[in-house]
Amino acid sequence: MSDIANDGAGAAPAVPSGRRGREARRVARAKLGAASLPFITRNIPLTEVLGEEGLALIEHNADTLLEEIGIEFRDHALALELLKEAGCDIKGTRVRFPRGLARSLCASVPPEYVQHARNPARNVHIGGNSTVFAPNYGSPFVRDLDQGRRYGTLEDFRNFVKLSFATPFIHHSGGTVCEPVDLPVNKRHLEMVYAHMRLSDKPFMGSVTHPERAKDTVAMCEILFGKEFVAENTVCTSLINANSPLVWDAIMIGAAEVYAQANQACIITPFILSGAMSPVTVAGTLTQVLAEVLAGTAFTQLVRKGAPVIFGTFVSTLSMQSGAPTFGTPEATLAIHGAAQLARRLRMPFRTGGSLCASKVPDAQAAYESAMTLLPTLQAGTNFVLHAAGWTEGGLTASYEKFMLDFDQLGAMHVLAKGIDLSENGQAFEAFREVSPGTHFLGCAHTQANFETAFYRSSLADNNSVEQWEAEGAQDAAQRANKAWKRVLAEYEAPALDQAVDDALRDFVERKKASLPDAAY
Amino acid sequence: MSDIANDGAGAAPAVPSGRRGREARRVARAKLGAASLPFITRNIPLTEVLGEEGLALIEHNADTLLEEIGIEFRDHALALELLKEAGCDIKGTRVRFPRGLARSLCASVPPEYVQHARNPARNVHIGGNSTVFAPNYGSPFVRDLDQGRRYGTLEDFRNFVKLSFATPFIHHSGGTVCEPVDLPVNKRHLEMVYAHMRLSDKPFMGSVTHPERAKDTVAMCEILFGKEFVAENTVCTSLINANSPLVWDAIMIGAAEVYAQANQACIITPFILSGAMSPVTVAGTLTQVLAEVLAGTAFTQLVRKGAPVIFGTFVSTLSMQSGAPTFGTPEATLAIHGAAQLARRLRMPFRTGGSLCASKVPDAQAAYESAMTLLPTLQAGTNFVLHAAGWTEGGLTASYEKFMLDFDQLGAMHVLAKGIDLSENGQAFEAFREVSPGTHFLGCAHTQANFETAFYRSSLADNNSVEQWEAEGAQDAAQRANKAWKRVLAEYEAPALDQAVDDALRDFVERKKASLPDAAY
Repeated sequence: MSDIANDGAGAAPAVPSGRRGREARRVARAKLGAASLPFITRNIPLTEVLGEEGLALIEHNADTLLEEIGIEFRDHALALELLKEAGCDIKGTRVRFPRGLARSLCASVPPEYVQHARNPARNVHIGGNSTVFAPNYGSPFVRDLDQGRRYGTLEDFRNFVKLSFATPFIHHSGGTVCEPVDLPVNKRHLEMVYAHMRLSDKPFMGSVTHPERAKDTVAMCEILFGKEFVAENTVCTSLINANSPLVWDAIMIGAAEVYAQANQACIITPFILSGAMSPVTVAGTLTQVLAEVLAGTAFTQLVRKGAPVIFGTFVSTLSMQSGAPTFGTPEATLAIHGAAQLARRLRMPFRTGGSLCASKVPDAQAAYESAMTLLPTLQAGTNFVLHAAGWTEGGLTASYEKFMLDFDQLGAMHVLAKGIDLSENGQAFEAFREVSPGTHFLGCAHTQANFETAFYRSSLADNNSVEQWEAEGAQDAAQRANKAWKRVLAEYEAPALDQAVDDALRDFVERKKASLPDAAY
Repeated sequence: MSDIANDGAGAAPAVPSGRRGREARRVARAKLGAASLPFITRNIPLTEVLGEEGLALIEHNADTLLEEIGIEFRDHALALELLKEAGCDIKGTRVRFPRGLARSLCASVPPEYVQHARNPARNVHIGGNSTVFAPNYGSPFVRDLDQGRRYGTLEDFRNFVKLSFATPFIHHSGGTVCEPVDLPVNKRHLEMVYAHMRLSDKPFMGSVTHPERAKDTVAMCEILFGKEFVAENTVCTSLINANSPLVWDAIMIGAAEVYAQANQACIITPFILSGAMSPVTVAGTLTQVLAEVLAGTAFTQLVRKGAPVIFGTFVSTLSMQSGAPTFGTPEATLAIHGAAQLARRLRMPFRTGGSLCASKVPDAQAAYESAMTLLPTLQAGTNFVLHAAGWTEGGLTASYEKFMLDFDQLGAMHVLAKGIDLSENGQAFEAFREVSPGTHFLGCAHTQANFETAFYRSSLADNNSVEQWEAEGAQDAAQRANKAWKRVLAEYEAPALDQAVDDALRDFVERKKASLPDAAY
């Protein structure tokens, strides 16, 4: 695990000896503490792309969209009933919001909340200056350099949970890190939720593929955390996607209803490939994003006022030539920044971005596109980052190697988010007083005092001479990542879990599985 | 050239026919006009990492550094004389500036200038909201997928000039795009400057390896542009690197003297691997950067008040374990943003960043590190971007494939820099009125009207299905880039140049070469 055990603040400590060794070990221990910081607290200014005028224009247009065109709430009588009571105009399944109503219903969303983990040191703060990274979500396929591309299995799922548990740079275990296609669709959620609970002690997401499965998730949380604790605290955050454009369907709002009632968090997310599921322009897309979030969130607040909700945005673009989804594009970057600004004005936590790409393999395309998504994601002030690691092929495939490569970039984001240290040590004036012009700073006292923590140390970048690199086999980054994930899995140790709790969870899972015939939906 | 002839605003136009065809051709022509826009005009807010307090602190410390420690001006009597006259304290070659003096001497630097190209449509504006991309600089080695790594030759140099000429996303032909190691050191500059003049019509950089070679550059510019034109206009921008920490040496200030006297532009650049050539902290490094730029720039303004100067910053980090240079690190990103802020407060144009990486090959490491450098470079408001394409192995090697991969990212930066279109068309409300919830926008009138220009179209990303990608050979991005540069070189056509001017340039080059014995320094 040594290759990912650096703490984002710099180098893994060298092996020390003697008196200097004791001091180095103390520093190393302090750094381990830092390593387990459960989320990023950003200390850098936000990057914004819209001014007041643009934001007000998009908000006005979103209100017009909700008022004139409206939005569908399909096959969910309660939603129509609650929205009608709240003052919406209902015609069939079409819901039109009087101007300003949706926004006022969203005012009860908490601007921040804590999602509890079974290990309290892993609790995450969602909102404000916090950024929480969660891994890939939803891929039916997996890929690695050895076996190529194949359907995901429960074993792959467990492996990804283990990888995310082992790195200090992923704060949240996520949800459907890949689809365990070897299990019946109607039973997958039980093993997925159990794997997050058993193999990791980080916070996790619940099932959303059926309201009943959301209920199973809450029931399992009650076993893990205790019923009373769950009644009073948020212990899962789950992904509720709109059926864009402008449709909320029964499954998704049914799951949202279950979670909101249980005071568990939902990420209300328009999932948009711009040009197909929204207009081909960024401003048009942001208008629709805002309208869909306002309507979906309004519903959650009617179910339970004050239920935690994250303003979600998944926006990418299409190749207008082939219709293929494209990622890491400049339009997607602008949408990330713009949506973050809209969410802040609603005083809601925000989710977007990740390490998205269209590439089939962890090559230069994958990395360019992922970096062009990840850096804006941080700079925009995103609070919850799904797909922060492992995503390839437009989300169809979770890549073992890309998990590792992305972890490394997430580590760098931890350092970037700290901003520039302006302390006396940061100013380093004593170094200037010690080092003469034309010499170097390598051995000076200030460098010696700081070298253990100076500079983010990538675990996968090869910075050696070309001669050394060739002597070591001239491996590219993907090949190095291939070795790294195998090492992490080999060294993985599951966090302890009370045996009675584990037994109760397994009992729940087995009974539930036995009670249902296998089904493929 | 089709793979790089897209214009950064979106798709290459489809082949049209009939009436709609004429309109499409008109659009295509308008887009070609856009394609030849000679630089980026940014319309997005700046990303900044330091507040007023931090900036003032670093400025104060830089003044203290110049006052207490001072800076060396070595082996250059004129520099010491001018600086003494200006009020500096001189002891040997150590120059100490009374607090505020260097800054006041820099006040005469023009906040912006135009560098003229022999094709006036290629003139670049340096400063303000402009960003100009120039290619790789200084690599002794080159690499491609076919032949691997080898010393650069004049043929490689010419190839890189051709590649940069052919892409609309590089605005400036650069300088030492690679070292033509097959030529004697003291004659290389003649063939390099001639290649920029003959094979491209974009602006270029001059030689800085000896004051005499700077003079040769100016003489060749006088042949190309006419003596009178050069006397009154800036026609080259050249790279003057400090010998950090805190030394200006005779060669660099000698070259700067030649260019400043001729009213040609210098990029006064601390070249720093933090931890060796500056303190291990970002704030300490920025202090030194500012001090070195202030001192070097002050000298140019004493040579000729008002000579154009760019505030340059090359900062990256070291692996404190191995001493190897590292790139795309979060500390380097913070330094980019911080230095840009310091330059803006001096009202000087700013150069930093590029597409830097330590990777030996155009793999995921190369792309992650390059993207993590390039995006901040744009967002910081950088005016002149050297190394925008082709750089690998910490600058030791220019990669043919990476040239193409980076061009593609530079194209994306053109679109990102435009920001969000808030026009009526950008708002796309007519699309919402046409498209029903639950359907799609692919065929609607607004999409039809915009699809030619909607979304940046990467020339190298593969967004196809995995099946199609496999059918086409399962090539990674580097393999696709390999095909692309060969196609561009095969289709390259040199821009026309007046035969008499060309003859005069060749005559100058040949006479100069014949007048000198070959030398390796």
